[in-house]
Amino acid sequence: MSYEKGSGMSVVIALGGNALGNTPQEQLELVENTAVHIVDMVSEGINVVVSHGNGPQVGMISNAFSEASEHDDAIPEMPFPECGAMSEGYIGYQLSQSILGELKRRSILRSTACIITQTVVYPEDPAFQHPTKPVGPFLAEEEAKKRAAEDGMTYAEDSGRGWRMMVASPRPQRIVELDAIRDLMDDGYIVIAAGGGGVPVFAYDDSYHGVAAVIDKDRTSAKLAADFKADMLVILTAVEKVAINFGKPDQIDLDHMTIAEARGYIEQGQFAPGSMLPKVQACLEYLDQHPTGTALITSLDHAAEGLKGETGTRITVS
Amino acid sequence: MSYEKGSGMSVVIALGGNALGNTPQEQLELVENTAVHIVDMVSEGINVVVSHGNGPQVGMISNAFSEASEHDDAIPEMPFPECGAMSEGYIGYQLSQSILGELKRRSILRSTACIITQTVVYPEDPAFQHPTKPVGPFLAEEEAKKRAAEDGMTYAEDSGRGWRMMVASPRPQRIVELDAIRDLMDDGYIVIAAGGGGVPVFAYDDSYHGVAAVIDKDRTSAKLAADFKADMLVILTAVEKVAINFGKPDQIDLDHMTIAEARGYIEQGQFAPGSMLPKVQACLEYLDQHPTGTALITSLDHAAEGLKGETGTRITVS
Repeated sequence: MSYEKGSGMSVVIALGGNALGNTPQEQLELVENTAVHIVDMVSEGINVVVSHGNGPQVGMISNAFSEASEHDDAIPEMPFPECGAMSEGYIGYQLSQSILGELKRRSILRSTACIITQTVVYPEDPAFQHPTKPVGPFLAEEEAKKRAAEDGMTYAEDSGRGWRMMVASPRPQRIVELDAIRDLMDDGYIVIAAGGGGVPVFAYDDSYHGVAAVIDKDRTSAKLAADFKADMLVILTAVEKVAINFGKPDQIDLDHMTIAEARGYIEQGQFAPGSMLPKVQACLEYLDQHPTGTALITSLDHAAEGLKGETGTRITVS
Repeated sequence: MSYEKGSGMSVVIALGGNALGNTPQEQLELVENTAVHIVDMVSEGINVVVSHGNGPQVGMISNAFSEASEHDDAIPEMPFPECGAMSEGYIGYQLSQSILGELKRRSILRSTACIITQTVVYPEDPAFQHPTKPVGPFLAEEEAKKRAAEDGMTYAEDSGRGWRMMVASPRPQRIVELDAIRDLMDDGYIVIAAGGGGVPVFAYDDSYHGVAAVIDKDRTSAKLAADFKADMLVILTAVEKVAINFGKPDQIDLDHMTIAEARGYIEQGQFAPGSMLPKVQACLEYLDQHPTGTALITSLDHAAEGLKGETGTRITVS
């Protein structure tokens, strides 16, 4: 191995969905920009694991196979876990390629490694009792009920546009490829991993099985960061700082929260469910398991400054 | 790292297309069987990098997006390199999961890592002058000519069933993720890499770009094995041994060939182009670059025995 290693902190960065886009061309353009910011951090000597969302992409892949298999007998329906693995390959390839290009332009002798990641979830996770995340194509009610009888999955009416498969969003319990991810980071690679939170799998005594479910990528990133005691967890979002009284005249942008303060704000309902709330919760999960760590929520544009403590919202135990 | 490391040889194994299948369910079943044989080798203390083909799978993915995008505006056409990356994720995920299951069943404390791989090819490769590999959907002549005018690719009539995009099969020059693959293998992981020969990319001074092309997976495996001086390159195929006078009354199954003998047989036209010929040629490319290595051609069922020298066809410098 002939790479320069980062001498500094170890950081897990979770890219938001807004770092990607809707078509391969759009995604490549956005990812090129993302790469600039990631290499900004790398050039400061930081060891980075990059994770990313995959909501729109895995949906697109699942829909493409569903649609195509109706018109072409040679194309099979694709199970949802396999669609997730495809999305990790698709996004990881573009991210890796863009980061490698940016490293070249700056003559930084480091390299990337994109690891297809599986994340163990528990069958007894209460989330499986109430699947709430719509995935895959919109279906007619009749077709949805037929499929439910066949595959035993939950289908429900979604936003007035038809019926869709509903899957659970269980808690990530263990990242199967944790050691490989950590070893690669320790060896100086910029690791792309845990895309889309990882493909959810059940781990039995004698096998693993993919599960049609989605895992919050921020929670998996938090688990990953805690498991290898990363110095920082960085969750990227659309805004520079977390705010309380968001959108009101007395909005306050926060530079710092202790976990006690964060829990207080959560109780006050300061953070929107499905938006800032799960990000703050992921930070708390990380800090619960790794109390000496620092969590940071900020935007992609401000990430490099944020790592230096110049902006963003930091969350620490005290 | 708490894994047992293989104490023995380093081996690159190239799985044939017959190790996969046509649907995700079929593939998973075949891959489960493949995993048994791979873990047989691992249990002998061998360090393994597993590569695999992706011809039918990348075609299926490309066709699915092509077909679906005609019926659904929300689904884009997917560029061929991105389809290749998806196929690496899809196949790698199932291979990794199956191998992990087999390791569990035998209580072997090793793990897997699937690396999305890019392979550098040269724009001046003569293969780009004569693209001969059909990929993607069958098109009407008119549609093919329209696309050719738009994307500058070559389209041609294929086997009387319509027009298809024709891509080149250039020589693999450099495996971008070589160091990561080698480091992971050295650390004791069973590495899944270079799927489909790797996504072909052009490497410019300041960037990498994906190319619509296919790379022979056996040639990439040979390059990979030579680059990190793997003790053996194992190319798996449908038959236990390479034969001369194949299918004739005087057929002879070969236990061993020197490279001089192999070249002689090639001149005699003993090996079928598109079948055994490229496999033997890949072995020669490996031995040219790594003369102390051993190449082995055999079937999946006989691979573990073959590694012990009990069957298969070995090719060595002398």
